[in-house]
Amino acid sequence: MRCRNCESKAQIYLRSFNLPLCKNHFIQRYIDTVKKTISKFKMFSENDKILVAVSGGKDSMALWYLLLKLGYKVTALYINLGIGNEKGESGYSNMSEKVVREFAKRMGADLIIENVLEKYGAPAPLLDRKRTPCSACGIAKRHIFNSIAMQRGYDVVATGHNLDDEVTALLGNILRWDESYLKSQYPVLHAEDGFAKKVKPLIFLTEKENLAFCMFEGIPFHHDECPFAQGATNITLKRIWAQIEDFMPGTKYRFFREFLKFKEKYFKLEEKKIQGKCKVCNQPTLAGDLCTFHRMIEKVKNKIITGEHFQQSY
Amino acid sequence: MRCRNCESKAQIYLRSFNLPLCKNHFIQRYIDTVKKTISKFKMFSENDKILVAVSGGKDSMALWYLLLKLGYKVTALYINLGIGNEKGESGYSNMSEKVVREFAKRMGADLIIENVLEKYGAPAPLLDRKRTPCSACGIAKRHIFNSIAMQRGYDVVATGHNLDDEVTALLGNILRWDESYLKSQYPVLHAEDGFAKKVKPLIFLTEKENLAFCMFEGIPFHHDECPFAQGATNITLKRIWAQIEDFMPGTKYRFFREFLKFKEKYFKLEEKKIQGKCKVCNQPTLAGDLCTFHRMIEKVKNKIITGEHFQQSY
Repeated sequence: MRCRNCESKAQIYLRSFNLPLCKNHFIQRYIDTVKKTISKFKMFSENDKILVAVSGGKDSMALWYLLLKLGYKVTALYINLGIGNEKGESGYSNMSEKVVREFAKRMGADLIIENVLEKYGAPAPLLDRKRTPCSACGIAKRHIFNSIAMQRGYDVVATGHNLDDEVTALLGNILRWDESYLKSQYPVLHAEDGFAKKVKPLIFLTEKENLAFCMFEGIPFHHDECPFAQGATNITLKRIWAQIEDFMPGTKYRFFREFLKFKEKYFKLEEKKIQGKCKVCNQPTLAGDLCTFHRMIEKVKNKIITGEHFQQSY
Repeated sequence: MRCRNCESKAQIYLRSFNLPLCKNHFIQRYIDTVKKTISKFKMFSENDKILVAVSGGKDSMALWYLLLKLGYKVTALYINLGIGNEKGESGYSNMSEKVVREFAKRMGADLIIENVLEKYGAPAPLLDRKRTPCSACGIAKRHIFNSIAMQRGYDVVATGHNLDDEVTALLGNILRWDESYLKSQYPVLHAEDGFAKKVKPLIFLTEKENLAFCMFEGIPFHHDECPFAQGATNITLKRIWAQIEDFMPGTKYRFFREFLKFKEKYFKLEEKKIQGKCKVCNQPTLAGDLCTFHRMIEKVKNKIITGEHFQQSY
């Protein structure tokens, strides 16, 4: 199979677009897609200070690399979530941290590292045993991204969410007709009092495209899945998407693109109803005098201190 | 397993509701569901003249039987679509017609029969070879339902659409974010100039529940699938729904119920933009001087007459 744009042998076939491409034209298309996404949704400009949230996985590493390559003012934030391996050590997180540190060194890039286990006494997914691991971990990550961005004056937080993440979340939200999520699911969340602007420049690229970009560009990444496997619901929904896409190639992309049009017409995002400031961290609260993260943390603090709450089990 | 409501042995288990029921309590719940649907959506009252569209399949036969049993003023309309068997005879439609005729006789019920092949020279699914069989057949059926209802002064047309039909269509419409379908998908379509009121009293009952109701009540029905198998898309979407429901029982029901709430808030149905009257049948037209059905018919009329167009192939 030949590349659609030149005479070279195709090195990747994007079935969703019936598009065979050589390495160079794939990379060019990938970069163009990211540039168009940044510009269309007014994500940031060359003068903005960007904090890119990196996990060490293929998506966020591709994003970090590309933003550096495009000459943006980028600092990476790596949060060591304290997630372990089967031996109960923080092996998973420490391995990701190693990948991220080495890459920062190689690229001469700015990197901030935060450590959840050291700071809060438990791995992020286990901070609140009444929540699912992904829910507790998500709250912790969003809190830390936001507080670092606000404290250190970044203009925007960029994350590596890809198209597969978005359509999976969107299908789940639609099966429940979850109004608040349908309203907030968007490539950009604008800054509000106490909340940094958040953007997803890879939102129109699939997992497969991010993986290929890393391989072609020699970007290192941590291959393992988080041992707190994503909820069974997400796995089911991803399997379902694979079937839909297999049967009707291009549906993922069209579904998300048309959703955005639909949303602009019907589901306008309302501003968050901020109640006050958190008495611990001074970030905005949506209810009471603690932010979501510190409400979670305060609830389990005593248990963590006495060791009752936290027992890592893999 | 015992019935949830009495000491009898359960004869059916509704997994979506984790509900084991004996025959009597199942039938009672089934009838209550239909009654509630009719009343909640103001479908019709005991004074209305109801035209129930029957195909001979389990859903419409269950509906016809129940409306008769509940004492409504019901006339059934059976459309012989001219659909054949593998021998090229109109066997499929003729077998359905036999089931319907015998049941009408047994129940002493009013029945109108229309015959597409005799009247238009081709089986309904083959009236327009540029459309999919289901699309052409759907246009023909809707046209005939509406024209009989309007000509003979029925207050409402009732069809046997079930929950599986609705969630399959809804998922397909959402994957395309098809605005006009999302707006018109509802248990009731109110009468408009030239269009009869249309209602779906079984919309909260699944295929399985309709089948069980027919079995328990001894209602005859034609078991075979239409040889113009429903499009592969529908089969794929039904398979996907089976997986979702298997993994998260009750999702079909909740998805449709929540959609209706969402829809009331966001997707208000607009009135049809009627342009005039069809010069052939005097029904309303949405564009030009022919209704959708007669636009289709006129286009293929010559071909049908010369025999070029129509060749039944199974």
